[in-house]
Amino acid sequence: MSVNLRAPDPAQLHPVAGVRVGVAEAGIRKQGRKDLTVLLLDEGASVGGVFTQNRFCAAPVQLCREHLAQGGGIRALVINTGNANAGTGEEGLRAARQTCEALAGLLKVAPAQVLPFSTGVIMEPLPADRLVAGLPAAVADAQPAHWARAAEGIMTTDTVPKAFSAKATVGGAEITVTGICKGAGMIRPNMATMLGFLATDARIAPALMQPLARELAEGSFNRITIDGDTSTNDSFIVIASNRAVNAPITSLDSADGQALRRALADVARQLAQSIVRDGEGATKFITVRIEGGRDGAECLKAAYAIAHSPLVKTAFFASDPNLGRILAAVGYAGIADLDQTRIELYLDDVHVVTQGGRNPAYREEDGQRVMKQSELTVRVNLGRGAASETVWTCDLSHDYVSINADYRS
Amino acid sequence: MSVNLRAPDPAQLHPVAGVRVGVAEAGIRKQGRKDLTVLLLDEGASVGGVFTQNRFCAAPVQLCREHLAQGGGIRALVINTGNANAGTGEEGLRAARQTCEALAGLLKVAPAQVLPFSTGVIMEPLPADRLVAGLPAAVADAQPAHWARAAEGIMTTDTVPKAFSAKATVGGAEITVTGICKGAGMIRPNMATMLGFLATDARIAPALMQPLARELAEGSFNRITIDGDTSTNDSFIVIASNRAVNAPITSLDSADGQALRRALADVARQLAQSIVRDGEGATKFITVRIEGGRDGAECLKAAYAIAHSPLVKTAFFASDPNLGRILAAVGYAGIADLDQTRIELYLDDVHVVTQGGRNPAYREEDGQRVMKQSELTVRVNLGRGAASETVWTCDLSHDYVSINADYRS
Repeated sequence: MSVNLRAPDPAQLHPVAGVRVGVAEAGIRKQGRKDLTVLLLDEGASVGGVFTQNRFCAAPVQLCREHLAQGGGIRALVINTGNANAGTGEEGLRAARQTCEALAGLLKVAPAQVLPFSTGVIMEPLPADRLVAGLPAAVADAQPAHWARAAEGIMTTDTVPKAFSAKATVGGAEITVTGICKGAGMIRPNMATMLGFLATDARIAPALMQPLARELAEGSFNRITIDGDTSTNDSFIVIASNRAVNAPITSLDSADGQALRRALADVARQLAQSIVRDGEGATKFITVRIEGGRDGAECLKAAYAIAHSPLVKTAFFASDPNLGRILAAVGYAGIADLDQTRIELYLDDVHVVTQGGRNPAYREEDGQRVMKQSELTVRVNLGRGAASETVWTCDLSHDYVSINADYRS
Repeated sequence: MSVNLRAPDPAQLHPVAGVRVGVAEAGIRKQGRKDLTVLLLDEGASVGGVFTQNRFCAAPVQLCREHLAQGGGIRALVINTGNANAGTGEEGLRAARQTCEALAGLLKVAPAQVLPFSTGVIMEPLPADRLVAGLPAAVADAQPAHWARAAEGIMTTDTVPKAFSAKATVGGAEITVTGICKGAGMIRPNMATMLGFLATDARIAPALMQPLARELAEGSFNRITIDGDTSTNDSFIVIASNRAVNAPITSLDSADGQALRRALADVARQLAQSIVRDGEGATKFITVRIEGGRDGAECLKAAYAIAHSPLVKTAFFASDPNLGRILAAVGYAGIADLDQTRIELYLDDVHVVTQGGRNPAYREEDGQRVMKQSELTVRVNLGRGAASETVWTCDLSHDYVSINADYRS
């Protein structure tokens, strides 16, 4: 089940010049499914990336950081599902290195020019031999038009592949942006999400790639939460193949830089939201908007308290306007001097709470009507200032429990 | 369903001299159930209390703080279920005051000598008239031996009434401790839990009651979590009727003071654990112990990250030793310089993780055996210092979702 999310139409996913995508079956955990994906980049591409803040970060995340720091010009990304290669110690690092070396050998590049990504079960040894054996088929499959296959190839508990694409005019030329990502549990990205890959053919100064990746994550993957669990493997990568004919972007604040950021941010936000729409067991897509905070940080505290509360999330699942639970979550969000008598609460346009108490004009049937929608906005005004923040989340259903109780079996 | 929790045997609950307990049906939300409880204290009792840190605290919590601060000698506690009187603004405060005034009138004491408590649905008006109409019956029912009735009277989604009792020798005399409490959702106490009442006949200097309440909460109700939601109504009250013949306790650090604290702490811990055992949908009682931390605060961070992770909790429900989820939770607990290669993880006596990776000697069937138990201990050593902390929690099951999706209907 997912909320208003359709599998991408391959014809709507624009190829990005200089990027080829291939998938293969490596039998890493299960037979008969595509579990190995490669993104091959022509020479001249530049790459930025942000990764999980989880201290127990996976071996591939450690290698990604190391390889990006070496600045040798990334030429390939390799992604396996079925095994996260996390909590696997030294042996896990060796397996990730072996993967990079094998792909580098096939492509005649250096191992440090390969970025590895893994997603799946934690704390089980990565079957690197099977993965390596699958690489030639993935490389042979690589085509510019294969983004939809890759979106399928990186799925774990996702029920719908996630890919979005756009074209924009930047620096006097048309540029293309195409991205894929996966969820669907252990989602409370902190600097980046599970796995997200965004590619553009735009010409961008390499030094801008890292701040660009950070900014894009902040407005998209860092604003979603499903279950509040920050994964060990979260990675978000932005690729510029530099093959478009736009005037090169040398500043993110120039008019061209802003046009580029808008185009990229738009696809990044759609990707991030698609993870929530396909959140484990999700039946509703919920926008939590906090206004009237003193600063963004306290708005985020309140937004995440609501978005993580199991009581709020089960009430959404039940379409029950048991809205006191939202007030309770705001109350324990950790805003020390919050004055409850200044709180206003809206469900879409229905004004539920005024001055911290039930709005006399509020009628339960109005709350009920909004709660029954598959998409709705919870809007809270803290009455303390001018800052605001938005977070996207989903409800907590029986299926979340089923999916996570049964995931390994 | 509850985990190894039996309804108290009324014969095992010792009356506390100077304290009478009564219940009545006031029809606050549903007909035909005891929803109104009073604890009547003889003159000379002293009372300490700690309350929720939720900024959206309920009207009765605000009145409790006000009345305790006046120090007028508390003579009665009145507890209703079916309505939390939270998120109810000025009208809620008036309803709570009306309740205190009515009971004070019946008892010929001052309204400030009454402490009110409410639990139930948030943001609906408290039907104070029905509550007040029920008070004479509750007062008429008051008897020293009615603790078991009170434990039933304060239940909401609890499936088992919770009461514990003990006798101890303190200051040369036998003293009695009896307590009751209720859960069972919105449980992440912060300074105090939903509702807990602990009474002793011991003679204790009144000035010690407040530090005693704080200390007892810290070792019991502040170490449990079910869903991470801190209630708007959490209250924990310690009552000393001063009717025993012990040498009066004038210091908590004296030998007598320590004996008293042990006796009270023991009952408080049993009460707190009983809330977890009867956690909404709970099928397992889980002790999370963190050792080897630099200080208690970081141990608690790691313990709560584990205890709140929906992924960890669903794995416990499934008896699935998907233990990487525990490592991931430790990793995102917010311990900034945590070194994953120093982490050790045990399930009871089974050594699962060593130096941050799977213990080569670990066999899945050993983990599975422990996971299938109804009670188990997750023990993590952070390898950073000598501090340790313990938290008690339960699993996350289908029934949690059902209970909270259906609570109001």
